Amino acid sequence: MFALANSKNKFYIKKMNPKHPAESLTILTDLVLPSETNPLNNLFGGELLARMDRAASIAARRHSRRIVVTASVNHVAFNRAISLGSVVTVEAKVSRSFKSSMEVFIDVWVEDRESGNRTKANEAIYTFVAVDDTGRPVEVPAIEPETELEKQRFDAALRRKQLSLLLAGKIKPSEATELKALFL
Amino acid sequence: MFALANSKNKFYIKKMNPKHPAESLTILTDLVLPSETNPLNNLFGGELLARMDRAASIAARRHSRRIVVTASVNHVAFNRAISLGSVVTVEAKVSRSFKSSMEVFIDVWVEDRESGNRTKANEAIYTFVAVDDTGRPVEVPAIEPETELEKQRFDAALRRKQLSLLLAGKIKPSEATELKALFL
Amino acid sequence: MFALANSKNKFYIKKMNPKHPAESLTILTDLVLPSETNPLNNLFGGELLARMDRAASIAARRHSRRIVVTASVNHVAFNRAISLGSVVTVEAKVSRSFKSSMEVFIDVWVEDRESGNRTKANEAIYTFVAVDDTGRPVEVPAIEPETELEKQRFDAALRRKQLSLLLAGKIKPSEATELKALFL
Amino acid sequence: MFALANSKNKFYIKKMNPKHPAESLTILTDLVLPSETNPLNNLFGGELLARMDRAASIAARRHSRRIVVTASVNHVAFNRAISLGSVVTVEAKVSRSFKSSMEVFIDVWVEDRESGNRTKANEAIYTFVAVDDTGRPVEVPAIEPETELEKQRFDAALRRKQLSLLLAGKIKPSEATELKALFL
Amino acid sequence: MFALANSKNKFYIKKMNPKHPAESLTILTDLVLPSETNPLNNLFGGELLARMDRAASIAARRHSRRIVVTASVNHVAFNRAISLGSVVTVEAKVSRSFKSSMEVFIDVWVEDRESGNRTKANEAIYTFVAVDDTGRPVEVPAIEPETELEKQRFDAALRRKQLSLLLAGKIKPSEATELKALFL
Amino acid sequence: MFALANSKNKFYIKKMNPKHPAESLTILTDLVLPSETNPLNNLFGGELLARMDRAASIAARRHSRRIVVTASVNHVAFNRAISLGSVVTVEAKVSRSFKSSMEVFIDVWVEDRESGNRTKANEAIYTFVAVDDTGRPVEVPAIEPETELEKQRFDAALRRKQLSLLLAGKIKPSEATELKALFL
Repeated sequence: MFALANSKNKFYIKKMNPKHPAESLTILTDLVLPSETNPLNNLFGGELLARMDRAASIAARRHSRRIVVTASVNHVAFNRAISLGSVVTVEAKVSRSFKSSMEVFIDVWVEDRESGNRTKANEAIYTFVAVDDTGRPVEVPAIEPETELEKQRFDAALRRKQLSLLLAGKIKPSEATELKALFL
Repeated sequence: MFALANSKNKFYIKKMNPKHPAESLTILTDLVLPSETNPLNNLFGGELLARMDRAASIAARRHSRRIVVTASVNHVAFNRAISLGSVVTVEAKVSRSFKSSMEVFIDVWVEDRESGNRTKANEAIYTFVAVDDTGRPVEVPAIEPETELEKQRFDAALRRKQLSLLLAGKIKPSEATELKALFL
Repeated sequence: MFALANSKNKFYIKKMNPKHPAESLTILTDLVLPSETNPLNNLFGGELLARMDRAASIAARRHSRRIVVTASVNHVAFNRAISLGSVVTVEAKVSRSFKSSMEVFIDVWVEDRESGNRTKANEAIYTFVAVDDTGRPVEVPAIEPETELEKQRFDAALRRKQLSLLLAGKIKPSEATELKALFL
Repeated sequence: MFALANSKNKFYIKKMNPKHPAESLTILTDLVLPSETNPLNNLFGGELLARMDRAASIAARRHSRRIVVTASVNHVAFNRAISLGSVVTVEAKVSRSFKSSMEVFIDVWVEDRESGNRTKANEAIYTFVAVDDTGRPVEVPAIEPETELEKQRFDAALRRKQLSLLLAGKIKPSEATELKALFL
Repeated sequence: MFALANSKNKFYIKKMNPKHPAESLTILTDLVLPSETNPLNNLFGGELLARMDRAASIAARRHSRRIVVTASVNHVAFNRAISLGSVVTVEAKVSRSFKSSMEVFIDVWVEDRESGNRTKANEAIYTFVAVDDTGRPVEVPAIEPETELEKQRFDAALRRKQLSLLLAGKIKPSEATELKALFL
Repeated sequence: MFALANSKNKFYIKKMNPKHPAESLTILTDLVLPSETNPLNNLFGGELLARMDRAASIAARRHSRRIVVTASVNHVAFNRAISLGSVVTVEAKVSRSFKSSMEVFIDVWVEDRESGNRTKANEAIYTFVAVDDTGRPVEVPAIEPETELEKQRFDAALRRKQLSLLLAGKIKPSEATELKALFL
């Protein structure tokens, strides 16, 4: 395992075998319960955020086999109201890992009871850090994407990480090479 | 759709296409939360029963595309304590349907964080009835089992139904032909 | 106290005084709360199972004065929808004990607000095991039934135990003498 | 039923038969769950207040056979910490009724698992008003106390009502004849 | 700090600087959630009591910088139904302290969404005791009221304390000098 | 009020008086309860997201005096574990409004019991849309920032909006003038 002080070193050796996103796939299908709805009888945005956090943390734990803690949540848009009694499926998979952190991509589906059709209700991206019992970050396996979508998400993860570091003031705009390329 | 009065008629015509158990597969993976544990820090039996009820009701709804209500729960054994913070996966599939009722088979798995191994923690069988908006039972599609395990569960469902009718005093021991054969 | 290894020995000596079912009577009267209802505004089957588990575990604890854990739930039928705001009374009593396990019989009543009449909504049978702080089973007092109903339930408990062992594959049909007699 | 405008008339005729406190006895026995405890692992005072409110409202409903709403809570003292996993029994009975309001007396007991002894943990007095579907107060039956304790509580209820009216500024100290007598 | 044995000694020296009520002001603004409502879709009295307990305990903790436990709740009147979806603001401030106990005054406001007007929905008075890690009472700072309302509440607190001791049978009516004066 | 079809028109007339951020300030101070913690006894990230959603929705409602629904959550970083029993203060204020949407800035503080010091635990930005009873977006008042911090947040809100539109594919990088300037 590598000490945290080395985390800026780009050429450290991975001792762990990389894993596929499918190995961390976590599915949480559940009803929208009355205690989770707002006065319009739709699922509270905040409750969906909590439910996605639980599913995503399990995916991160499956990838790392470690205790994991939520590090951040990316921009989440709520485009579609989800009504009381709906069946909601939250699917979470690790999309990329960095040293001790893991980006988890979450797709949320709502199912029509009569037709059985599933509609995409939300997408979200959470980041988790693997820690030991004392709360110190520990290294996690790399990700090897397989499907086309997994590859796209893997590539975009680097841009998101730069954006996150930029917004946190930890890198300068000039260092965000992936992002910068978007505007030039 | 057939009126309920005809339900004792064995030779009614199925108008709906039969479905496979896999079409109703419902996966509910979630953590054991602190509010669900007993003083030994293990999941309450009653909370697991409630969680299985939600997953199984979704499976029955996926099979029938109807509102469903819990009709009964078969014998459930709790052989293994499930500790706080565990990842629990509840998998539910319709194993057989009768007119308007569906037997749902539920497998519960607990995952070891370090090894990633899954251990069977419980099995349970719930029965649901499909109803219309006024609460009247409505007919549901038949089941066509595919795998060896699905076939075994499909066959055993008839014995369980007889046992259930026998225990409820709705048939006599002599009518429980499948059961009787076990003892002779 | 007897070691677990002796548990197949039929002629062990009871050191504890037997108790009456009435000594473990546990009454849990409560409202059906909005967070416990399904889209038809009726109590979820799973929530009733959880509530019965809490009441029955208290009855088992009162009988044994030990930590108790849910071992199994017998067949439960849900014959009657229980609506939001109803007053539900769960009454649990130990019906029979075996070495370290206790069968608890649960009667569930729903009350009509205007007439005050109580209607039987459910019956259920849960089994609990008494354990010490390390989770090892410990012996519990025997039951001496008093009323006619308590005697019937006490006698039937043996048939249920055989059925349970039979379904679990722990005895052969030929050994289930009480059950076999039903079919011959 | 009498119109509310007549409620100051002392000589109105009771059309309803009086009831005994025992007819409204409501018992709510339940565990102290992990989600109800404070950082010292004891039941939150506020949670006990909520649990007592549910039990007492059922007692008031049993007495009046009406919808009831909480009108007030008398002074409640918390003299004894109740720890996680305890068995708590809340017993509520209507102690006196006034026109459309009912005073409910609540006794809370905690049970020692090993000895089986019950200790008084709390007493509380809640007042409820019976209302019709539109929320208008409606008359309720009178109370006829039977036991010595019920008689004491019935008599004291009048003093408490005067104290309550006095504190609310609805009567003058000179009108609180029962209370005044205490000090002279 | 003074040992508990000295608590009847009126002339003990205060070592702590007194504080103003404003220093403990605690504001808990939240929605009325579906899981907290009764069949009339209004907030349960018991849930409001629990919410006020949490806010008041934080005020007492801010004043004392100690672990605090609920000691008692004064008379609380529920004069106004609070409907599902309402915005409820609970404001709690320590109104007076005695040795190791603190009286906390709580004002509850409900907000009209369209006009933005706030209406007083409830007032309540809770008493907390500051304790050390072993549960033993410890001394707390005195209160110096600033506003006119704070001064009124500070003065009335002594009468309330006498009433409380009187009702608990810990002092005689003749010793309740402040209360007695009301009636003479 | 303007129809939604006009929402791209930059020069619509504001009929409503602008408001200050302070007018929507919402404070939600509460304890970290046992049911909200993970196995390390710290507040779940997801629960904090839910609590912030409730506070922020009240701020948006106070600004707009309308029903509001969560539209999106900006990047949220969890830099600091918040332990069981902590006092957490969530402060939410509308930082800028656009036609029918409002950006709400949320500051989360954790308080040390012994010193009374408050530490910044989190910042988050949620966006809400004001709707009428049928769910159609309706116009909201503009924001006039007062303090230096409010002005900074007001200005940054435009960059965040461009970033959000860019990430959603609704504008091209070349149109995100504010963002683009950061990289050039």
